[in-house]
Amino acid sequence: MAPQLDTYFKTVDELADQFIDRLRKAVAIPSVSADPDLRPKVVEMGLFLEKELLALGATVEKRYPGEQPGFPGLQLPPIILSRYGSDPKKRTILVYGHYDVQPALKEDGWATDPWVLTVDEKDRMYGRGSTDDKGPVLGWLNAIEAHQKAGIDFPVNLLMCFEGMEEYGSEGLDDLIIAEAKKYFKDADAVCISDNYWLGTEKPCLTYGLRGCSYYSVEVTGPGQDLHSGVYGGTVVEPMTDLVNLLGTLVDNKGKILIEGLSDLVAPLTEEEQSLYGDIAFTMDDLYESLGSKTTIHEKKEEALMARWRYPSLSIHGIEGAFSAPGAKTVIPAKVTAKFSIRTVPNMQPDEVDALVFKHIHKAWEKLNTKNKVKPELMHAGKWWVASPKHWNFSAATKAVQSVFGVTPDFTREGGSIPVTLTFEQATGKNVLLLPMGSSTDAAHSINEKLDKRNYIEGTKLLGSYLHHVAEEPQV
Amino acid sequence: MAPQLDTYFKTVDELADQFIDRLRKAVAIPSVSADPDLRPKVVEMGLFLEKELLALGATVEKRYPGEQPGFPGLQLPPIILSRYGSDPKKRTILVYGHYDVQPALKEDGWATDPWVLTVDEKDRMYGRGSTDDKGPVLGWLNAIEAHQKAGIDFPVNLLMCFEGMEEYGSEGLDDLIIAEAKKYFKDADAVCISDNYWLGTEKPCLTYGLRGCSYYSVEVTGPGQDLHSGVYGGTVVEPMTDLVNLLGTLVDNKGKILIEGLSDLVAPLTEEEQSLYGDIAFTMDDLYESLGSKTTIHEKKEEALMARWRYPSLSIHGIEGAFSAPGAKTVIPAKVTAKFSIRTVPNMQPDEVDALVFKHIHKAWEKLNTKNKVKPELMHAGKWWVASPKHWNFSAATKAVQSVFGVTPDFTREGGSIPVTLTFEQATGKNVLLLPMGSSTDAAHSINEKLDKRNYIEGTKLLGSYLHHVAEEPQV
Ligand SMILES: [Zn+2]
Ligand SMILES: [Zn+2]
Ligand SMILES: [Zn+2]
Ligand SMILES: [Zn+2]
Repeated sequence: MAPQLDTYFKTVDELADQFIDRLRKAVAIPSVSADPDLRPKVVEMGLFLEKELLALGATVEKRYPGEQPGFPGLQLPPIILSRYGSDPKKRTILVYGHYDVQPALKEDGWATDPWVLTVDEKDRMYGRGSTDDKGPVLGWLNAIEAHQKAGIDFPVNLLMCFEGMEEYGSEGLDDLIIAEAKKYFKDADAVCISDNYWLGTEKPCLTYGLRGCSYYSVEVTGPGQDLHSGVYGGTVVEPMTDLVNLLGTLVDNKGKILIEGLSDLVAPLTEEEQSLYGDIAFTMDDLYESLGSKTTIHEKKEEALMARWRYPSLSIHGIEGAFSAPGAKTVIPAKVTAKFSIRTVPNMQPDEVDALVFKHIHKAWEKLNTKNKVKPELMHAGKWWVASPKHWNFSAATKAVQSVFGVTPDFTREGGSIPVTLTFEQATGKNVLLLPMGSSTDAAHSINEKLDKRNYIEGTKLLGSYLHHVAEEPQV
Repeated sequence: MAPQLDTYFKTVDELADQFIDRLRKAVAIPSVSADPDLRPKVVEMGLFLEKELLALGATVEKRYPGEQPGFPGLQLPPIILSRYGSDPKKRTILVYGHYDVQPALKEDGWATDPWVLTVDEKDRMYGRGSTDDKGPVLGWLNAIEAHQKAGIDFPVNLLMCFEGMEEYGSEGLDDLIIAEAKKYFKDADAVCISDNYWLGTEKPCLTYGLRGCSYYSVEVTGPGQDLHSGVYGGTVVEPMTDLVNLLGTLVDNKGKILIEGLSDLVAPLTEEEQSLYGDIAFTMDDLYESLGSKTTIHEKKEEALMARWRYPSLSIHGIEGAFSAPGAKTVIPAKVTAKFSIRTVPNMQPDEVDALVFKHIHKAWEKLNTKNKVKPELMHAGKWWVASPKHWNFSAATKAVQSVFGVTPDFTREGGSIPVTLTFEQATGKNVLLLPMGSSTDAAHSINEKLDKRNYIEGTKLLGSYLHHVAEEPQV
């Protein structure tokens, strides 16, 4: 029996202004996790959530992970664990979100004060954290409140995990998830994370896959110190010469990774999978718009989506230690360290990728026949993640999208990584669903971050609807 | 008749502590021309020189070149023009030096405060500007003072030109030299510049040639803004991929410039010239020591010297716009600008070099077959310079070295450029001599810059002795 959601939806609409006020209060707290000076504001934001949750009748436990590594005396903000309902006859859903935000300065080019939620004539709500991730986090609270105000029984037990260090590497979170998997989180039947975005602006999507990321540095050293190119140019084997030649062996400008054996690790494309890409609500024009150019490798949407979601890519990010400022400096840098990363996909095992990368570098280095020294290193690796989109967690979300938006969502993967996804899956052993609230134009991490009022309010309906469908989906 | 210099030399020795005090006062003024905040200190240093010169009985004219281009409201420091003596029966020597210095921060790794002249147990005098170029500039003042204290007639008329922007491109200087060539500088019979270094640490040298420098940027653009490599890696043609491939076509790690036609511009090596390199007091060990490594292109001293002095070289300095900080950032930079430069030698005409460079870049770019755009630009060009070492200016200096150090100096060229050298030569039409005071281990532009007490005090003797020999050399 399909759940009766009309009253819930109507109540959300009635409470819309209050919900926007709630977001306004949250945006006003500059909870920038990357800035130690703003750490008290991150903590304040955690306490704001606690207060709101307690007021809604949820229980809350604040977990302090301790000092921030590398910052003696700087305490990490609390991870807010919360439970709403504990009826053993109901399913239990564990949701995750983060209450910290990216840095933002008006002078970076914001049209409005980033810490004042500003709604324009098209109902776009501008403010740092509006879409990433305060809007989605508050969506869960709004859903609880709307049920209470509407007098509707909450359909599931809700476990919440809201952290305050996501934008700075989720310090302390993995340990907590692993430690609590069989304790605080032990009842969880499935996990839902709302911290990504629709592929476009109109059609909701459910996300069931993420690429991983293996990030490398490769250091080239020669002289004992930086040298003047006038005095030493022509006499010394320059590390930069070797490094640019080495980097030239990694990938071509058609996106083909030139590391021997790497493509053999990639899961073959089945005809069934190939057939899925044509239907996705996405066009090359969407891609051109988000790139700000037509400099794409592929001309066809299907190829572009596959390149983003299911094939690896290699990007050279830059070089540390060389001259990188404006102007002209005649230096021969003595030690230069390039950074590059590979986005990984099924079935690439991170350690296999490392081995191929190191082998390639050493082989290419030998060909250079140089007196300089090379030192490649893995800086960090996060594995790709793919969930089963046939799980009841996904079918509940599909029905929820249909009930709120009247369309069947696209099933998407993402090119980027959200490492906590894999941690939740591995620690709890449960299905994880990524259920985005915001749209592709929200500019998370950029200036003028926004969340459309429609996405926030219909998104609140979506989260509640999802929980109702979760309660009714048969086990498969 | 050889000049009688014993009394002068003795007086310099007696005044050594005072001369060191003079240098201590100068080093204490952080006259960093690159830092607008320190501009008042640069001016203060100019006024310090004026005061010292006036006290010695010289006349001084301060010339203010006006606002610094690109820095509205920021005045350039004065160029100090000074004259000591105006006897029409004497030769007139024009000397040049600079009173500004490179930036220096204790935390860059200095063993001592860079702004406090610190003399160690081996009589090495550490401090920013000690050798570049405050020591040599004060050497001229010391020479005047020692003559006065010794009661010896000053052998020449001395014209001095001390600027305060050398380490930031000598803003405003060229115009002044050209304007004053037939005015303030009109009596000059020859020019002497003390702003370079001995080839080693023991044997003085006279320098008669410099390489030029043509400095290029090459900008590669594609997307409208920086992109996240997770989201866009594999879908966009990355500017960094194209740039590293382009840079790989410029030069190999044996120092061979791969730009077609460039080596045809280089003056052929004659047997006579080739025979000169063997006698130079320089060993591969000297080179290894100054490099801090054995990562040289050549194994033989003659080859290394020729590579530094008489062959062109190409250095890649770095990339602007890419990720250059420590740590890991998953950015696809949208606009990256590499900087590289070519050290030029006779008979490479700068505009011919430019044409070959641009042609090469466009040809290599076509081969890359990319959707990105490339824009190479000449940032600045300074031509090479070669003087006649048979001029009386050089023979006077040769005899001065013999009288102070008891050896015949090496005649050297340098790999780096001192653009003002060519300007003085072209504007005055007179012979220019580079007469270094410091040694190869002085670490100008690096941390722990120093000037050995011996180089400063014997160098002061050398400058005075040079002027006496100048007065006696026959015209040739
Ligand atoms: Zn987020
Ligand atoms: Zn974020
Ligand atoms: Zn200098
Ligand atoms: Zn200098």
